[in-house]
Amino acid sequence: MVKVGIIGSTGYAGGELVRILMGHKEVEIKWYGSRSYIDKKYYEVYQNMFQIVDATCMDDNIEALAEEVDVIFTATPQGYLASLLNEAILSKVKIVDLSADYRIKDVDVYEQWYKIEHKSPQFIEEAVYGLCEVNREDVKKARLVANPGCYTTCSILTIYPLAKEGLIDMNSIIIDAKSGTSGAGRGAKVDNLYCEVNENIKAYGVASHRHTPEIEEQLGYASGEQVTLNFTPHLVPMNRGILATAYATLKEGVTEEMVRAAYDKYYADEKFVRVLDKNVCPQTKWVEGSNYVDVNFVIDKRTNRVIMMGAIDNLVKGAAGQAVQNMNLMFGFKETEGLELVPMFP
Amino acid sequence: MVKVGIIGSTGYAGGELVRILMGHKEVEIKWYGSRSYIDKKYYEVYQNMFQIVDATCMDDNIEALAEEVDVIFTATPQGYLASLLNEAILSKVKIVDLSADYRIKDVDVYEQWYKIEHKSPQFIEEAVYGLCEVNREDVKKARLVANPGCYTTCSILTIYPLAKEGLIDMNSIIIDAKSGTSGAGRGAKVDNLYCEVNENIKAYGVASHRHTPEIEEQLGYASGEQVTLNFTPHLVPMNRGILATAYATLKEGVTEEMVRAAYDKYYADEKFVRVLDKNVCPQTKWVEGSNYVDVNFVIDKRTNRVIMMGAIDNLVKGAAGQAVQNMNLMFGFKETEGLELVPMFP
Amino acid sequence: MVKVGIIGSTGYAGGELVRILMGHKEVEIKWYGSRSYIDKKYYEVYQNMFQIVDATCMDDNIEALAEEVDVIFTATPQGYLASLLNEAILSKVKIVDLSADYRIKDVDVYEQWYKIEHKSPQFIEEAVYGLCEVNREDVKKARLVANPGCYTTCSILTIYPLAKEGLIDMNSIIIDAKSGTSGAGRGAKVDNLYCEVNENIKAYGVASHRHTPEIEEQLGYASGEQVTLNFTPHLVPMNRGILATAYATLKEGVTEEMVRAAYDKYYADEKFVRVLDKNVCPQTKWVEGSNYVDVNFVIDKRTNRVIMMGAIDNLVKGAAGQAVQNMNLMFGFKETEGLELVPMFP
Amino acid sequence: MVKVGIIGSTGYAGGELVRILMGHKEVEIKWYGSRSYIDKKYYEVYQNMFQIVDATCMDDNIEALAEEVDVIFTATPQGYLASLLNEAILSKVKIVDLSADYRIKDVDVYEQWYKIEHKSPQFIEEAVYGLCEVNREDVKKARLVANPGCYTTCSILTIYPLAKEGLIDMNSIIIDAKSGTSGAGRGAKVDNLYCEVNENIKAYGVASHRHTPEIEEQLGYASGEQVTLNFTPHLVPMNRGILATAYATLKEGVTEEMVRAAYDKYYADEKFVRVLDKNVCPQTKWVEGSNYVDVNFVIDKRTNRVIMMGAIDNLVKGAAGQAVQNMNLMFGFKETEGLELVPMFP
Repeated sequence: MVKVGIIGSTGYAGGELVRILMGHKEVEIKWYGSRSYIDKKYYEVYQNMFQIVDATCMDDNIEALAEEVDVIFTATPQGYLASLLNEAILSKVKIVDLSADYRIKDVDVYEQWYKIEHKSPQFIEEAVYGLCEVNREDVKKARLVANPGCYTTCSILTIYPLAKEGLIDMNSIIIDAKSGTSGAGRGAKVDNLYCEVNENIKAYGVASHRHTPEIEEQLGYASGEQVTLNFTPHLVPMNRGILATAYATLKEGVTEEMVRAAYDKYYADEKFVRVLDKNVCPQTKWVEGSNYVDVNFVIDKRTNRVIMMGAIDNLVKGAAGQAVQNMNLMFGFKETEGLELVPMFP
Repeated sequence: MVKVGIIGSTGYAGGELVRILMGHKEVEIKWYGSRSYIDKKYYEVYQNMFQIVDATCMDDNIEALAEEVDVIFTATPQGYLASLLNEAILSKVKIVDLSADYRIKDVDVYEQWYKIEHKSPQFIEEAVYGLCEVNREDVKKARLVANPGCYTTCSILTIYPLAKEGLIDMNSIIIDAKSGTSGAGRGAKVDNLYCEVNENIKAYGVASHRHTPEIEEQLGYASGEQVTLNFTPHLVPMNRGILATAYATLKEGVTEEMVRAAYDKYYADEKFVRVLDKNVCPQTKWVEGSNYVDVNFVIDKRTNRVIMMGAIDNLVKGAAGQAVQNMNLMFGFKETEGLELVPMFP
Repeated sequence: MVKVGIIGSTGYAGGELVRILMGHKEVEIKWYGSRSYIDKKYYEVYQNMFQIVDATCMDDNIEALAEEVDVIFTATPQGYLASLLNEAILSKVKIVDLSADYRIKDVDVYEQWYKIEHKSPQFIEEAVYGLCEVNREDVKKARLVANPGCYTTCSILTIYPLAKEGLIDMNSIIIDAKSGTSGAGRGAKVDNLYCEVNENIKAYGVASHRHTPEIEEQLGYASGEQVTLNFTPHLVPMNRGILATAYATLKEGVTEEMVRAAYDKYYADEKFVRVLDKNVCPQTKWVEGSNYVDVNFVIDKRTNRVIMMGAIDNLVKGAAGQAVQNMNLMFGFKETEGLELVPMFP
Repeated sequence: MVKVGIIGSTGYAGGELVRILMGHKEVEIKWYGSRSYIDKKYYEVYQNMFQIVDATCMDDNIEALAEEVDVIFTATPQGYLASLLNEAILSKVKIVDLSADYRIKDVDVYEQWYKIEHKSPQFIEEAVYGLCEVNREDVKKARLVANPGCYTTCSILTIYPLAKEGLIDMNSIIIDAKSGTSGAGRGAKVDNLYCEVNENIKAYGVASHRHTPEIEEQLGYASGEQVTLNFTPHLVPMNRGILATAYATLKEGVTEEMVRAAYDKYYADEKFVRVLDKNVCPQTKWVEGSNYVDVNFVIDKRTNRVIMMGAIDNLVKGAAGQAVQNMNLMFGFKETEGLELVPMFP
């Protein structure tokens, strides 16, 4: 059994990691790190785990952890892992980082959007961007995986085939994304109180959300061009789910058949990406609790734009599920191990 | 007291008309039309009206109604009013039509998008498009007002100042709109069941929603150009509210100050349109139950696009409230009579 | 115009007071007290009030306030008013206290359930328990009104006629109450985050909730007996509304007609209490945004128990609305002034 | 592999059966019966099953089904199975009936509460009431299992230990239950529309709900007394979950230790019943998606009543999960096979 440690196990993404790993046959969790709940039973923080997890929360000691486990998941604030990582740690343990610390290759871009200094830029080059459907082979060989953001996973996978195949004008991309509230984390803030979110919808981080450069970088690699785009996130009154509605202008001569062929080319063999039947729009509820990404598109001939849509569960494919998928690749497990989660409806 | 009749008084928009008119000092409702609930007490259909409305639902007899009342609100399916309207009726009574029958000036466009034959095109020319902030003077003189759609009210008012002032490229407009579920009406459909809508978000009517040509026509008048745009509606798990997030490319040299000045020019004196302070994004909850439209914008210098946002209560400014505002203008009442509704939070 | 000051104007009950008083013809708010937001525009705290309230939040200085206004509403934590009140203040200004400080006549009971020392027990005797339907005449003469709690208002009015008429065994009462989340206030606590409340229901404060002795005391006055009962509150995923489902054993020989007659006797002339038609169960949505209490009952002949049900909007009749109703009585205004709020549906 | 047929596979309980059986190692579904969707792909009805279930919906032909499969689940309206069942069928196939047809031993009681004639009373005696924790040994030998109702499963398991041990006055029981909306089924009814359920709570079926006699019968067996009780269901704005809050008077001399010992006696070894730590109240969210029942209690010394609380997922332990648990027992599989579902939070 591979031994797992989690730093930040009591946030929503950490909790989801625990839920998923409970059903994974090849691993056991050895360390439930949680600075806020040290010495408290894990199930006292998440009562759903009562009689399932008996462990006690421990401090977030990455040095000690590196001695005891084979892989560490860090579900921690931006800058945390970057401030601690060193070669000694990485030589002992593999790391899947759910924060943004190693997602962006250009350290200046990182520091500009995140407004913090990067404390260990020397590992950025080595880190593999863990979007399995795109970087599968690199992930298999990685010591350090930068697990993609929730909005970015959804946005990139929704647009990727058309970017890669050169079917759209890369300067015309607009992504209007909608997320459930678990994406905002478990911190006690007035803005995330039930009464503030319920019966309400708003945009936030307009033209300034940190996932923007991550999407731009990855779609840049796909298309071979520098990409600048609009990304607007919205907060939706639901627990889980992200829907990305993306708009782009089709290049001349691009037909519906060509667009569908592009999606099929990249996703026909992908277990976790489902290209829906024509005229079926993705709905977040249909992927809830699962690692699926549902994608589809509509072409508007009047404007010559394609409307691409993608739906994920932000805590699964957008965080913990993808992290487990990365771990599976890194350790040579079956890629779907622990992830054959059937979406729950209703 | 002006006498009011409502045809379709037991749909959600009809119910909201009743709620608002209960607080209107100049009118009394004489006819609660409802084909589905004839002879039933109105409060048995909407128990919130118990001990407030004692009337009984009546058949939808527009001829009889025209004899008895001064103004008729029709909150009816598409094609209903068009199939019944004639000069005899219009000579006796004013009509505010909440359906789409007289909103679109080009009957071919209407028939193409609505897939029904228009039975009384002779009144289309006369009908005034009842967006009060834009067509106030015409509404005052009208016999027949076409009350704008919910999505269209929100979308047009969000974009109008920039279209009118020529600050944006009219071919670049993309509107991504999100609506609460009351917009889908009170019909018993599986798709609108609690368990299907709750914890879910989806796009629908992509590149084919009927409000598209209405928005295009009105923004065309504003800009003096033919406009073709993308409009994508989404269903959000909340009762009320529409948020429109609209994207457009700024024309060369347009500055933030010019954009703000445009909003102020058209809305500074408008009671029901609130241009929010810089960096404050509209939220549907802040206008709930009221006739307000909250608008604001952000400029993304990286892409040279402006992101315009607008929020309304779809049942008030998007339906019943605007209908009352139109009636107020048509009868020379104070425009805000019955509409000084403070938004309810939370 | 009567001048109003609010201490605690930025909590949910305070915000609702502002909403209601905006529609009140006889008063103007002179002081928006909020220790947390001093010098901030009130509309920056509650954006629904943008362009409606232009005032700035002020400190909670009750001495200064007493000089400037005619009536103070205190929507403050338990013990706050009791620690400050003195004869000098009360000689200058009337007070409607939305906290529990003066609701319970027996100071020992207060201190035992609230776990705090009462700092001004000398005013308890004078304070009038502001349940208008029961204590109307006393309220009219009061300087200091203890505005009832939300659960208690709903519970007492649901049971009152049967207690008063001696139709039920007072030792058999069980109240199972369900509340929306605004009752938990606007404090930033993990337990009240959207993701913790949504898709969830739980009981809390079982056998220990502070509203218990308040209900017992008032039903004791009604019945002329000492009353001990069970009260269990539950948290429901909705913003507003309390539903109380109360159970009691009928005394021998009590018939359905007698029970209905009791409700009619006390409520037939009460504007804000609606006794629903037979077989219609109260629903919180039907009173949302209004000052109504909807009540009804079912008799179970198999067990000889009566099931009494009552629904209110916890922020209106359960807090701010009732406070305004009390103020109306204290100042000789029409009792319904500012309170003719039609429930909003959906 | 044991072959499974489902009649009524496109209701919510049917859909949940499919979700759970997808993860069951010993069975395969051979027949997706759905009278409403014959010849339609199952995934077109439930898009969450896209690329997971490829089968087509078939007619509800129980005779044909009995030839092809080893076990039939009937998730059908009351009276359906009773009208078709015969010895020929039962001699070929085992049946788990999710309807109420064989739950109640007294056919008069069934006909009185369900208002339909029972067409095959000859099988009532043989049918085993499939509450596994209570009737495990009988279920193992059964051909026909009557799967308990959702409210009843939750209510009975919450009260059972105290009834069985004689710790409470059986005539004092009051059950106040709260259910998510999936319990109302997938039929298109106005009452279950999003806008009618959302932001609302109501009691329904007061003193007349059909689960009442089922609870009374089972608690009667447990206590050895005839039991008459009050059961009041409420509709809560959430998809899944039932919370039962039950009240009873403790017999003289019963202590907290005795009550806890009773729960431990019956549930310490039960995988699916979790007796929570003292002072922890069950929450439906903590069992969502799982087969768990969380129970706990509080004693109110002031009234000498015990407040018992239980939470389940109505579609799992209250329907499909318990049905699979019964099947596991009937076929000698591991009782937990397919049911090791970790609750999903948030």
